[in-house]
Amino acid sequence: MMVIMQQGATEEQIRHVMERLEAAGVKPHPSRGEFVTVIGAIGDDRELVASLALEAEPGVEKVVPILKPYKLVSTDFRGGTDVVVEVAGRKVGNGSFGLIAGPCAVETREQTLTAAHAAKDAGASMLRGGAYKPRTSPYAFQGLGAPGLDILREAREETGLPIVTELMNLRQLDDVLDVADVVQIGARNVQNFDLLREVGQAGVPVLLKRGMATTIEEWLLSAEYVAREGNPNVILCERGIRTFEPATRATLDISAVPVTKSLSSLPVIVDPSHAAGKRDYILPMARAAVAAGADGLIVEIHPAPEHALCDGPQALHTETFDEWVADIRRIVDVMGKVIAGDGSVPVGA
Amino acid sequence: MMVIMQQGATEEQIRHVMERLEAAGVKPHPSRGEFVTVIGAIGDDRELVASLALEAEPGVEKVVPILKPYKLVSTDFRGGTDVVVEVAGRKVGNGSFGLIAGPCAVETREQTLTAAHAAKDAGASMLRGGAYKPRTSPYAFQGLGAPGLDILREAREETGLPIVTELMNLRQLDDVLDVADVVQIGARNVQNFDLLREVGQAGVPVLLKRGMATTIEEWLLSAEYVAREGNPNVILCERGIRTFEPATRATLDISAVPVTKSLSSLPVIVDPSHAAGKRDYILPMARAAVAAGADGLIVEIHPAPEHALCDGPQALHTETFDEWVADIRRIVDVMGKVIAGDGSVPVGA
Amino acid sequence: MMVIMQQGATEEQIRHVMERLEAAGVKPHPSRGEFVTVIGAIGDDRELVASLALEAEPGVEKVVPILKPYKLVSTDFRGGTDVVVEVAGRKVGNGSFGLIAGPCAVETREQTLTAAHAAKDAGASMLRGGAYKPRTSPYAFQGLGAPGLDILREAREETGLPIVTELMNLRQLDDVLDVADVVQIGARNVQNFDLLREVGQAGVPVLLKRGMATTIEEWLLSAEYVAREGNPNVILCERGIRTFEPATRATLDISAVPVTKSLSSLPVIVDPSHAAGKRDYILPMARAAVAAGADGLIVEIHPAPEHALCDGPQALHTETFDEWVADIRRIVDVMGKVIAGDGSVPVGA
Amino acid sequence: MMVIMQQGATEEQIRHVMERLEAAGVKPHPSRGEFVTVIGAIGDDRELVASLALEAEPGVEKVVPILKPYKLVSTDFRGGTDVVVEVAGRKVGNGSFGLIAGPCAVETREQTLTAAHAAKDAGASMLRGGAYKPRTSPYAFQGLGAPGLDILREAREETGLPIVTELMNLRQLDDVLDVADVVQIGARNVQNFDLLREVGQAGVPVLLKRGMATTIEEWLLSAEYVAREGNPNVILCERGIRTFEPATRATLDISAVPVTKSLSSLPVIVDPSHAAGKRDYILPMARAAVAAGADGLIVEIHPAPEHALCDGPQALHTETFDEWVADIRRIVDVMGKVIAGDGSVPVGA
Repeated sequence: MMVIMQQGATEEQIRHVMERLEAAGVKPHPSRGEFVTVIGAIGDDRELVASLALEAEPGVEKVVPILKPYKLVSTDFRGGTDVVVEVAGRKVGNGSFGLIAGPCAVETREQTLTAAHAAKDAGASMLRGGAYKPRTSPYAFQGLGAPGLDILREAREETGLPIVTELMNLRQLDDVLDVADVVQIGARNVQNFDLLREVGQAGVPVLLKRGMATTIEEWLLSAEYVAREGNPNVILCERGIRTFEPATRATLDISAVPVTKSLSSLPVIVDPSHAAGKRDYILPMARAAVAAGADGLIVEIHPAPEHALCDGPQALHTETFDEWVADIRRIVDVMGKVIAGDGSVPVGA
Repeated sequence: MMVIMQQGATEEQIRHVMERLEAAGVKPHPSRGEFVTVIGAIGDDRELVASLALEAEPGVEKVVPILKPYKLVSTDFRGGTDVVVEVAGRKVGNGSFGLIAGPCAVETREQTLTAAHAAKDAGASMLRGGAYKPRTSPYAFQGLGAPGLDILREAREETGLPIVTELMNLRQLDDVLDVADVVQIGARNVQNFDLLREVGQAGVPVLLKRGMATTIEEWLLSAEYVAREGNPNVILCERGIRTFEPATRATLDISAVPVTKSLSSLPVIVDPSHAAGKRDYILPMARAAVAAGADGLIVEIHPAPEHALCDGPQALHTETFDEWVADIRRIVDVMGKVIAGDGSVPVGA
Repeated sequence: MMVIMQQGATEEQIRHVMERLEAAGVKPHPSRGEFVTVIGAIGDDRELVASLALEAEPGVEKVVPILKPYKLVSTDFRGGTDVVVEVAGRKVGNGSFGLIAGPCAVETREQTLTAAHAAKDAGASMLRGGAYKPRTSPYAFQGLGAPGLDILREAREETGLPIVTELMNLRQLDDVLDVADVVQIGARNVQNFDLLREVGQAGVPVLLKRGMATTIEEWLLSAEYVAREGNPNVILCERGIRTFEPATRATLDISAVPVTKSLSSLPVIVDPSHAAGKRDYILPMARAAVAAGADGLIVEIHPAPEHALCDGPQALHTETFDEWVADIRRIVDVMGKVIAGDGSVPVGA
Repeated sequence: MMVIMQQGATEEQIRHVMERLEAAGVKPHPSRGEFVTVIGAIGDDRELVASLALEAEPGVEKVVPILKPYKLVSTDFRGGTDVVVEVAGRKVGNGSFGLIAGPCAVETREQTLTAAHAAKDAGASMLRGGAYKPRTSPYAFQGLGAPGLDILREAREETGLPIVTELMNLRQLDDVLDVADVVQIGARNVQNFDLLREVGQAGVPVLLKRGMATTIEEWLLSAEYVAREGNPNVILCERGIRTFEPATRATLDISAVPVTKSLSSLPVIVDPSHAAGKRDYILPMARAAVAAGADGLIVEIHPAPEHALCDGPQALHTETFDEWVADIRRIVDVMGKVIAGDGSVPVGA
């Protein structure tokens, strides 16, 4: 780390900071300029920066960390090798494109099975669907709960598609793990650290949505919580951040795709549905995500969006979903990728 | 609600929206303008707006709700009467000012007791301290856990100050309830709806921090989750929102104080420490919070901030905390309020 | 507009609002609900909403405009026909893709001519380059001024590429108009309304960058300032908005492409360079922009980015720019568009 | 500056960066760590950081400036002495509180004179009023222009209050200078650098509003543009920044008051009217601003806000403005300040 002292910091303050660095086992290198002194202390400073809290010392202007604060999920750690998350034979990452589709919420057996078949027929890699729904208003539909998980189990049996479903709290852990091939951690839980630790210990593939106000660095630190329990199978999911612009539900941070791919070895997919909030914008935003280098997409489909109990305005129609996928596939092709589990390649190839 | 149709919406689309409103038991009133038709449907639309999802219907431009989406926590519901939250004889709200102070994290018995006595001596109303700490980095100190709760219990016995401490997940619920006089729900859990429901059922006073990207409306809906379980004792806590400005850790939304007080009957306090992130800014920001009409403050104090395991740069020194409180009290006086539990008035008066 | 009265608004307040609407020549339609009265007044409310200021009246909760506040630049006004901006035979819009490249700032004759030839050879449609540079710091290079314009004139003579250059203030107007084929209005001047009016009167094609904190609606209103002077030739340019995310210089709002195209008839291009701030991210972000449906791109190229006087870290190398364009062209092809002025089609075709 | 090299940067890349620093006349100090090399180059790096553009060099991770990028407006430059801006005998800064009131826009002679007298009678220090109005919509009232300036001149003659009025473009410069005692640069022009230079040269006191997306550092750099022309008389004005929160027109960044006062020697005032956007919130926000340490306030007053041509919902009523000022004065007193030009002290005292 570099400790930048204030203009006018005293010799005693400088000496005190150096002593604290030395006491922590780090060798400090002071550089004395005309106006300001900077104390360098180079090494693995991930834990030191946090634990020393030198910014609280008198005379310190600021502390600049040198190393990224995450380690296991960084590109440096794996020497440039990408993590490929494999789910029931479908791979996400390194040229294999994960296309995840399904209803926002599991509402009925019929609605879910219709969506599952539409996803399957259009060539999707996995089925999404929420049995537990985090809703801003207590007056909105909160999900079917456990019976919803049973419907998802049946949909997997019928279609063979792996299931992506959300875990909201630790008490649901066993039930969700019993059905989920991929456990989704939603945007509101991206810093629910206890949840992250437990899905890390469970070893199940995790789809980790970025929070609405989470920086990319914080998001990768949340992934590090999972990885640190021995579970490297994290799929990052950009889903839009909160900004001043009201025209969309969230602002899709498309640059998060190349940024996370340059900083981290994890695959990154994009959820255009929640960012757009409006059906018409989803196709262009999905195309953009693929072109930006995303390793997959997660989209919402529904047999009758205008009667959906959750997020109807942003759901694609199941009956035309195959055309939608055909459109997206043109960009997937240009990017030299293949949709995992797609009819055109054997599953698990 | 008002359903604004698109320019060019067909008669059939308009009729269809009206039929859906009628089927839901609401009488629609269409207004046909030169360019656009608007369909009004007035009544308690809290559940209808969400459940009908008319924005997903063809021809609909947008749906404008008329009523506020929350009810129990609104000023209208209580006819202008303020909720006063009473904690072991200390009141927060309606002229009684809650001053909560203590360390960010419980680190040691000595550190916590020193802070508790400093809080008590300076005239604080309650003691804060975290046994479970949500930390962005897995490499940072995560709190003492259960032993930390024991230290808090001892601090209460020694000083008589009620305890405010954070609950992070459902599994800690019983342990935390056993010690906490007020359960703090942190910024990262403001939309952890299962947690909100359970503290609602527990009936304990709740300090509900605003999330970093939570609108005031969403924050009040989170409070509504608690209130709906029969627990009206929610203290709202503004702690800064995330913006583009890097000079402070978060941007304290001072206008949230008058805004929430005009929309809701709940007391609102301010946490200047987390917003500022830097000791020097906390006094002016705390003064501002009091002047804006806050019903209280929550601040971090530490006997040795430069050795704190958490948030040292923003901790006030315990040894000069009494001067700090004396400064704040001048503005509390001008606002015609009294610090709850302050030496100047008998506790519970 | 719909005027939503407060709960508890008096009959007199309701009557007063209706009288003001009638006095303004609009027929009010009140709808009285159980809790709230809404007064509808349908018609062209663009000027009325602003001029009546009914939100300042006692008893009024809020005013909801029905029509979009802009008119000439809206899709409705042109009945779905797109504006195609033609610049010296190059078209931008309706399938014709404008690729604009060049240095951030004109620094020297040699640097600019090298960049101009690289742009031309790679198949770009126009040359960009700033003679007047808005710089955050007074200590940074401020542009060559008038001599820079002469260099641009020479570059156009040598390469035949039309010139896009920025206008910063009214005093430079004649000089800039003398050289510019397209006048760029920078992000910081998007609400410099006098400047907008004058380039509107000049009738020259305008490249209007979105401001860092400008909503799409405000941006279209700025375009309306130009159009209202009789000049419909406005190319919108998304260049990133300011958010909390520090990993990029600005957050490219990719959804602004489909959103503006659905609201407005104007062509929309994207500047990935200023949003990215870092060379490595520009290709994926440019690909994404094309896939999202942009009508063009504007990018910075430099023969020696590490010696650039302005924005070097985000400049592409001139010597490999042809490969960069070849990559982008693959997505342009998939989108069924053609780069204007590209070797593959005659200029002006 | 500190140049942090990438992990894996080559010896040649490190040497090249050192050579470039040496060529610029700076002595580089490399520190080689286990993972990363950092090259320190300490001295006055304001111009170097910008001109060297080392972030564009291969192998460079990032460049961390050591010194603040502004100089003349910094606290360091003046050794802790505050700038006190004196306007016709009224001082702003160092304990003298500038209370500026008046209509948003000059609409009529009568409206302006009524407001001027109300301001005067309530004890305000100066009169504000816009003759040229920047309006988001071209369909909104744009100000009276030159005749508005004449009305302001008359108001000054009648009341003796100095005039604060906005300058929008260079062509209005002479006319505005002829009337204005303080030239206001609006939020949209905070980075209109040509305008800043010219008001710098004119030597007139400047009220510089912060832009809606301007960081504090950028705002101080805009002030530096003025100061660099030899004009230190800049009053900073915080007026709210743009965030995701829709409940107020802008989010008043109250912490900007202590932050700018710690970084800069300039006085800082607050505009609660534009941030609030709603009359009811202005008093609490104004109180907060005073308590946070602001050197003044600027508020909008109108004899009939519901008929105002601009920003009526946020205007205070002239007839009760004296009570409003009396309320604010209680906090001004606690802060140990005196309203400049107030009846209680002789002007210019």
